[in-house]
Amino acid sequence: MDNRILELLEQQTEGYLSGEVLSKDLHISRTAVWKHIKKLEAQGYKFEASRRLGYRLISKPSKLSIQELMEKLSGTSLIKAIKLHESVDSTQNIAQRLAEDDAPQGTLVIAEQQTSGRGRMGRKWVSPSGKGIWMSLVLRPRLPLQFASQLTLLTAVALCRALKTVAAPLDIGIKWPNDLLIGGKKISGILLESTAEDERLKYVIAGIGISVNLEADDYPEELLPIATSLRMELGRPLDRADIIAAFIIEFEQLYNVYQNEGFGLIRTVWEALSVSLFKPTQLKTPTGIVVGTPIGLDESGALLVKLEDGSLLPIFSAEMSPLSDNRS
Amino acid sequence: MDNRILELLEQQTEGYLSGEVLSKDLHISRTAVWKHIKKLEAQGYKFEASRRLGYRLISKPSKLSIQELMEKLSGTSLIKAIKLHESVDSTQNIAQRLAEDDAPQGTLVIAEQQTSGRGRMGRKWVSPSGKGIWMSLVLRPRLPLQFASQLTLLTAVALCRALKTVAAPLDIGIKWPNDLLIGGKKISGILLESTAEDERLKYVIAGIGISVNLEADDYPEELLPIATSLRMELGRPLDRADIIAAFIIEFEQLYNVYQNEGFGLIRTVWEALSVSLFKPTQLKTPTGIVVGTPIGLDESGALLVKLEDGSLLPIFSAEMSPLSDNRS
Repeated sequence: MDNRILELLEQQTEGYLSGEVLSKDLHISRTAVWKHIKKLEAQGYKFEASRRLGYRLISKPSKLSIQELMEKLSGTSLIKAIKLHESVDSTQNIAQRLAEDDAPQGTLVIAEQQTSGRGRMGRKWVSPSGKGIWMSLVLRPRLPLQFASQLTLLTAVALCRALKTVAAPLDIGIKWPNDLLIGGKKISGILLESTAEDERLKYVIAGIGISVNLEADDYPEELLPIATSLRMELGRPLDRADIIAAFIIEFEQLYNVYQNEGFGLIRTVWEALSVSLFKPTQLKTPTGIVVGTPIGLDESGALLVKLEDGSLLPIFSAEMSPLSDNRS
Repeated sequence: MDNRILELLEQQTEGYLSGEVLSKDLHISRTAVWKHIKKLEAQGYKFEASRRLGYRLISKPSKLSIQELMEKLSGTSLIKAIKLHESVDSTQNIAQRLAEDDAPQGTLVIAEQQTSGRGRMGRKWVSPSGKGIWMSLVLRPRLPLQFASQLTLLTAVALCRALKTVAAPLDIGIKWPNDLLIGGKKISGILLESTAEDERLKYVIAGIGISVNLEADDYPEELLPIATSLRMELGRPLDRADIIAAFIIEFEQLYNVYQNEGFGLIRTVWEALSVSLFKPTQLKTPTGIVVGTPIGLDESGALLVKLEDGSLLPIFSAEMSPLSDNRS
């Protein structure tokens, strides 16, 4: 039914179609017409609605296409399959099921919309239709389990480098371990879900959410002080396929370097891109609160925090907040 | 139908019941009777079969009971729920589904039989009905991902200590990382499946298979040179509930020590119980073959291998085989 309403409105791009005409043509009530319009709006279609004249289609959401993505990724060999969905609960769930069914490394799941996008620590992730990049990449690194957290840091480096290029001249930095920030506000989130047998990684699902073309009214009020989008910062929309391709290209390069030469280079670049270092910080770890100044990463990928007595403490897992700020 | 055959044979413990009588009484063919007898044998029932006299029930399999287990575990607080199954594909699969549905730490899944028991690296695990302990324990350690492999070593220490007590005076040792051996033959396997979000463990499923009362004809021919059971080594059957309880009690103690005081003690005890140290060894790692002599564990739980040039190499993941032996 949504498609039939769209068809009728597309034939009528200059003028309006009244709710009455739509309801007659489609044999549904005017309330039903209104409900379908709302549903289309949620998918990114924009309408002008006039009580007197009816509805007019103003703009359609830009859609990702597998063909376009494949063309932009033709120089890479990492991506073996792209699964593009209109709406899913969470691309992580889809990718996880595929990985359990032996999907190869390089299977990429993308959705225009997530209805239950997942962030770190069970938090929700705002992922409205057509506005952002919500994707999950299946990886099968031949790595011991210990090193999975290095992949988290690598993914942040790849995404930061990709966004700095496509969204230049925005100043984008990494908050430990893997959030990307512009002026202290979050523009993307990374969630790596790892599954291991004993000391051997079976697979890793790298989930990436990027707030590309979201506008202020896409966010719940309470998130506006801490979240932003590339569009809001740049003042213009960006092409999502370009960003996906830029990320995959960066990721593939770093992933190859990492697998061949280890964590050294990734660590150095992470430190260079980080906005979490050399500032007094409070870290809520599973075993208690640590106050100190992060000065870098150690060889394993742990955050090295300088304590008041001058000693260095490696932190493997924590929530970080500025010392002067109690906002979680 | 299996139950009705059992009933009839149980009423007749002194004498035999002929296939003809059984087939008449149950209104099934004599071939069908024979098939049901085979099925019951697979479940651990033993029959004497005489062409002239028919069948006689000799012994029933010993069954685990939740009540008996709970009584034996009354001194511990780790176990929150026991799920006892007659036959499952794999207790790991069941426990994993429970963990995804938020089952608490201490959920213990036990099966009399596994039809697709899983071992390390996707290998099958022989788990006939009533003869062994096939179980999976849900853990939710508040640990960074990096430390999951320490839990693998801890589980091996707990199981080795438990078996040395209940199956004294057998000489049981740990082969790196977590197989238990008697005289070079495997008597148990441990498989820890970990799931993590970024650097944080979500849950760990500790799968434990113990060949308690298996007899030689329970194994495929080709496994006999490398596998054995406690019964085959001791010359008498053991009570499975006692072994489960002994393991849980050991595990709980070590797990508490580990969470409060770290890996130090576990490492020392693992080294003391290991049969993998101080012997020239070949290690097949994901990045190539390493030849050297393991001398202990490092702080992270990696195996420290002394190379020919005297340097120490930490090994995180490998398959180990004696240098003079090409058996994989």
